[in-house]
Amino acid sequence: MFQNISQSIADRSIHIGWIGLGVMGKPMAQHLLDAGYHLRVYSRTPSKAKPLLDRGASFGITAADVAKHCDVVFTMVGYPADVDEVYFGAKGIFKSTRPQQILIDMTTTQPFLAQRIAMQAQRCGCVSLDIPVSGGDVGAREGKLSMMVGGDEDAFRNVGPLLSHFGTNMVYQGGAGAGQHAKMCNQIVIAGTMIGTCEAMMYGYKAGLDMHVVLQSIASGAAGCWTLNNLVPRMLDRNFEPGFFVDHFIKDMQIALEESRRMGLKLEGLQLAHQLYEKTSQLGYGKKGTHALLLALEQLARNDRSQTI
Amino acid sequence: MFQNISQSIADRSIHIGWIGLGVMGKPMAQHLLDAGYHLRVYSRTPSKAKPLLDRGASFGITAADVAKHCDVVFTMVGYPADVDEVYFGAKGIFKSTRPQQILIDMTTTQPFLAQRIAMQAQRCGCVSLDIPVSGGDVGAREGKLSMMVGGDEDAFRNVGPLLSHFGTNMVYQGGAGAGQHAKMCNQIVIAGTMIGTCEAMMYGYKAGLDMHVVLQSIASGAAGCWTLNNLVPRMLDRNFEPGFFVDHFIKDMQIALEESRRMGLKLEGLQLAHQLYEKTSQLGYGKKGTHALLLALEQLARNDRSQTI
Repeated sequence: MFQNISQSIADRSIHIGWIGLGVMGKPMAQHLLDAGYHLRVYSRTPSKAKPLLDRGASFGITAADVAKHCDVVFTMVGYPADVDEVYFGAKGIFKSTRPQQILIDMTTTQPFLAQRIAMQAQRCGCVSLDIPVSGGDVGAREGKLSMMVGGDEDAFRNVGPLLSHFGTNMVYQGGAGAGQHAKMCNQIVIAGTMIGTCEAMMYGYKAGLDMHVVLQSIASGAAGCWTLNNLVPRMLDRNFEPGFFVDHFIKDMQIALEESRRMGLKLEGLQLAHQLYEKTSQLGYGKKGTHALLLALEQLARNDRSQTI
Repeated sequence: MFQNISQSIADRSIHIGWIGLGVMGKPMAQHLLDAGYHLRVYSRTPSKAKPLLDRGASFGITAADVAKHCDVVFTMVGYPADVDEVYFGAKGIFKSTRPQQILIDMTTTQPFLAQRIAMQAQRCGCVSLDIPVSGGDVGAREGKLSMMVGGDEDAFRNVGPLLSHFGTNMVYQGGAGAGQHAKMCNQIVIAGTMIGTCEAMMYGYKAGLDMHVVLQSIASGAAGCWTLNNLVPRMLDRNFEPGFFVDHFIKDMQIALEESRRMGLKLEGLQLAHQLYEKTSQLGYGKKGTHALLLALEQLARNDRSQTI
């Protein structure tokens, strides 16, 4: 079904749309420009498009306009409401889709929303993929993202050469929404490792340990995790810049909680993580990195008269 | 102060005591025998000593008897009450300690108990070390344990050649109890990674994902952890044999909770993990591996009429 697209990817004649030029979307779009593709971009904040336009991209005045001119359309926006808007809104993608077009949402969003997009795409004779990523802004810049793929498998195989500019780990997880579900698994694990790690830091500080030294004992054993290796050094430097925003992590955990409730599942660890991160955001750390949970735990302990930190 | 010991370790004339021949203690004692040291062993269950006696070890009829004949005494028993008994009991080590002896407790136990042992040792003119380990029975058998060292630093440097038979990662964490505190940090991180991982498994199963495939997407990214790499494959095989016993993990978490309460610290994630593991044990999985938390979560979800798993 997608031979034409496969061929036009190979000879760079394909027209690619890119919607969303935030901290993730912009470097990803740039990788495609670097690789020699025609790009038409759209951003709610047009100034964000300038560096891409300077390098040859064209600007779409709406998401619908991007969809009208492109064979493959990528979206990488912020919240589920933004995804809803760019697909189903009055100036959205579905106002001007055409048969055989491939729509690829890389935002982390609701599995249910990915399924709605897939159904609407089918009605329009085109197909959709949900491909949330992990690896953060660094992964996006370095082209080292991990991609979790849901939706039309044939379409996925055909756009693989495009995706390869974003990273090498791309795994097909199943039908529409399965990419989002896999991403939720990822975030649920992280919720646990973040709580465990930050609480261990609280304990170790209070016990008078040198956490640099503790790290030498525990990082390579059964407690070993990405968080210990990558975020604890930043905590030790009191550097809480993102990385991955607290507020975006809260959004992801809300999706996972809604989805698990919908499936009749109670996940107490995830609930606790969500509560603690809500408090972290309320304390003003929403735009800090997820490891700012430590800052919040410290502040909550100081304010709690039953604790003596 | 410990030159004599250092020399007698080098020429194998040192007499080493070993108390506790369980799943950890026995292989560790065997490493010392293999290395050509004189060993005097004690176990509450004398039959456990047989393989060691067959290979040249002598048997002490009590912990006090072992201490009486040895320059360095290792203890590796089960619960804090057992440690208390072998050190302070009527037939315990402190009934027959002598100056310059080095007492090394490798049990995971209370930091406070390690400090009590250190104080009593000082009164007797000898010294103590608390060196809990991580790496489990496999690490013990393969000589690949990670050792977290608290207590007399000079003594630690001098017994290093003995410890090197148990593993290469040995890090001095501070005075008496600091080894135990570092181990608690280790267990607190694990409590988080276990909840996150098992809840992600629950979510993924319910969402209809193939968790083998999800693992390919998430194991190498920000969710990556020892638990994902080592325990999820066992969960996927429905193999819940230990590894590390649920009941021993509960003991460790109880110590960490008591100690954090004593320090005026509230660790909600650790509290939740402790509650969930208590339920896991109550369901009959106390002698299963820690990843049997998944079994418990599954069973609790089935029994909870508000959940629909």
